[in-house]
Amino acid sequence: MTELKNDRYLRALYKQPVDCTPVWMMRQAGRYLPEYRELRAQAGDFLSLCKNAELACEVTMQPLRRFDLDAAILFSDILTIPDTMGLGLYFETGEGPKFSHPITSKADVDKIGIPDPEGELQYVMNAVRTIRRELKGEVPLIGFSGSPWTLATYMVEGGTSKAFTKIKKMMYAEPQTLHALLDKLADSVVSYLNAQIKAGAQSVMVFDTWGGVLTPRDYHDFSLQYMQKIVDGLIREHDGRRVPVTLFTKNAGMWLERIAATGCDGVGLDWTINMADAKARIGDKVALQGNMDPSMLYASPERIRQEVSTILDGFGEGTGHVFNLGHGIHLDVPPDNAGVFIDAVHELSKPYHG
Amino acid sequence: MTELKNDRYLRALYKQPVDCTPVWMMRQAGRYLPEYRELRAQAGDFLSLCKNAELACEVTMQPLRRFDLDAAILFSDILTIPDTMGLGLYFETGEGPKFSHPITSKADVDKIGIPDPEGELQYVMNAVRTIRRELKGEVPLIGFSGSPWTLATYMVEGGTSKAFTKIKKMMYAEPQTLHALLDKLADSVVSYLNAQIKAGAQSVMVFDTWGGVLTPRDYHDFSLQYMQKIVDGLIREHDGRRVPVTLFTKNAGMWLERIAATGCDGVGLDWTINMADAKARIGDKVALQGNMDPSMLYASPERIRQEVSTILDGFGEGTGHVFNLGHGIHLDVPPDNAGVFIDAVHELSKPYHG
Repeated sequence: MTELKNDRYLRALYKQPVDCTPVWMMRQAGRYLPEYRELRAQAGDFLSLCKNAELACEVTMQPLRRFDLDAAILFSDILTIPDTMGLGLYFETGEGPKFSHPITSKADVDKIGIPDPEGELQYVMNAVRTIRRELKGEVPLIGFSGSPWTLATYMVEGGTSKAFTKIKKMMYAEPQTLHALLDKLADSVVSYLNAQIKAGAQSVMVFDTWGGVLTPRDYHDFSLQYMQKIVDGLIREHDGRRVPVTLFTKNAGMWLERIAATGCDGVGLDWTINMADAKARIGDKVALQGNMDPSMLYASPERIRQEVSTILDGFGEGTGHVFNLGHGIHLDVPPDNAGVFIDAVHELSKPYHG
Repeated sequence: MTELKNDRYLRALYKQPVDCTPVWMMRQAGRYLPEYRELRAQAGDFLSLCKNAELACEVTMQPLRRFDLDAAILFSDILTIPDTMGLGLYFETGEGPKFSHPITSKADVDKIGIPDPEGELQYVMNAVRTIRRELKGEVPLIGFSGSPWTLATYMVEGGTSKAFTKIKKMMYAEPQTLHALLDKLADSVVSYLNAQIKAGAQSVMVFDTWGGVLTPRDYHDFSLQYMQKIVDGLIREHDGRRVPVTLFTKNAGMWLERIAATGCDGVGLDWTINMADAKARIGDKVALQGNMDPSMLYASPERIRQEVSTILDGFGEGTGHVFNLGHGIHLDVPPDNAGVFIDAVHELSKPYHG
């Protein structure tokens, strides 16, 4: 077992005692940091940055140099898997990712293969290996993937969407086509995350950004059941240590029990649920990750500390809480406010731990 | 009391027995209808259509000629109130509403006055009066307004938004400025809806499209408390009949109890909650409106009927259910599918009544 200097993040997910509540931030490596913007300007487009292991490592490390974070997260794109599938992924300034050949039929789905994580996705594994070396055991490294449903939304809609009409049209008119796509994506994610674990990711997270746009019935059939397949297929022990998996569906506050029942270790929470309610509902089963509104980082240091205190108080005493934002950090927050947030979690959480 | 030929919609909101479940569709007068698109092309821009009482009446009546709907809803824009406030509302094709002078400071808020509903908003009241005459007591007329929070998001963001960073910045950094704005908007909405009631609206609805982007604490302080002020300020009896008020916050499935506790008559539900769960939680207090995913109207008639059946079964026996979509109808659904939906509600709901 590789030694870790700071294992608070893993211990909280294992529900083992910690000295204070661990904290990291979704999208902690990114555009709100001037040093990121500088590197990004040199690298060219976003995918080029992801595909260069040295640069991806550098970007991953940047927030750790500024802040007292308890985990690093692989810098990569959510669409690395679809990018291998011949749909013509490209990025348009200000409009996010687009596919020039979106999935429209069963024939399109049949053409798709499961990507080889040490083949066309080897650049991701190289980034994981490089980051692990560079981290020198300071904090654990989190690997990640988009959920099958969330990846499918981009692949069918051809980009980001508001109403998800194309994929819902497919879901209601041709459910078997969508199931075939989701099944291939679930197999791809299992193989992708297991390769990340073998390459050195000490924990993995599945981001289901768009599962919350579904009915409770459809959420089960088209999102959760494929995340269940992922949880069931993941390597759960590696290098002598349990590899915790965290599932995060945005806008899924009503469905926490069902997410916790998958056998995942952690459940990510957005800010629309009170931490105390979430703990009462699923805190006996899983660890909780979250859940400050990322917009709070626009506020004054006093207001940020007050919000951290409210959320810590909601969780109450004991371990099982990984503090985070309820979604990715906004690109225009002052970096110093992120520092205030992180320090506040460490300082204000001490009284809640033995 | 003016006689109504079909009062199922009102009876369901009063929780009085009905012969079958009433149904209408949010945005039932709109772009999915070819006759609407034709009229719109003649009228010019969207606001011109709203500001002409004869045209607004014609558009309101169009879906009633095609479908067996149990209510009409005033055709108007959600931003009529902000439009009077000197912020320079305009519509950009494909981008929705924009304000050239968004609210940025307390000084901007201080400049705003409460609009006179029989002054600068008289065109809305004229539309209500015209529609009531034209309806000839066939079905009741629903009046509506955006909620203070939802109106404020457009006024502060300067248009539609994804992350609501400007208004949240104001909420966290300068809460008193936002409260001052919301308070003026609540007063404006009370006066606006009461004037609609006096002009002939037999029921009113408050659309809080964006309340679901808030934390539970902020939802209370910045959205619900101002809807409470509206409920408290509304005329609840007019023309010898109770005027029911329905509150609808999208993505508020976790907060239904708090919405029901305002004293409203109906609570609107989006599709992310099971009807049976909603009924168990608040069905003893209020009527429920909803909640089929609007995207279901892309599916086959069989699939639509199956979904209607599932939702009816979720509500179970008895009155207190106004069937609807969980949000506005999409602009590209086949109108015939809306007809299938409406007929299915009437036909399949009969066994649940008397």
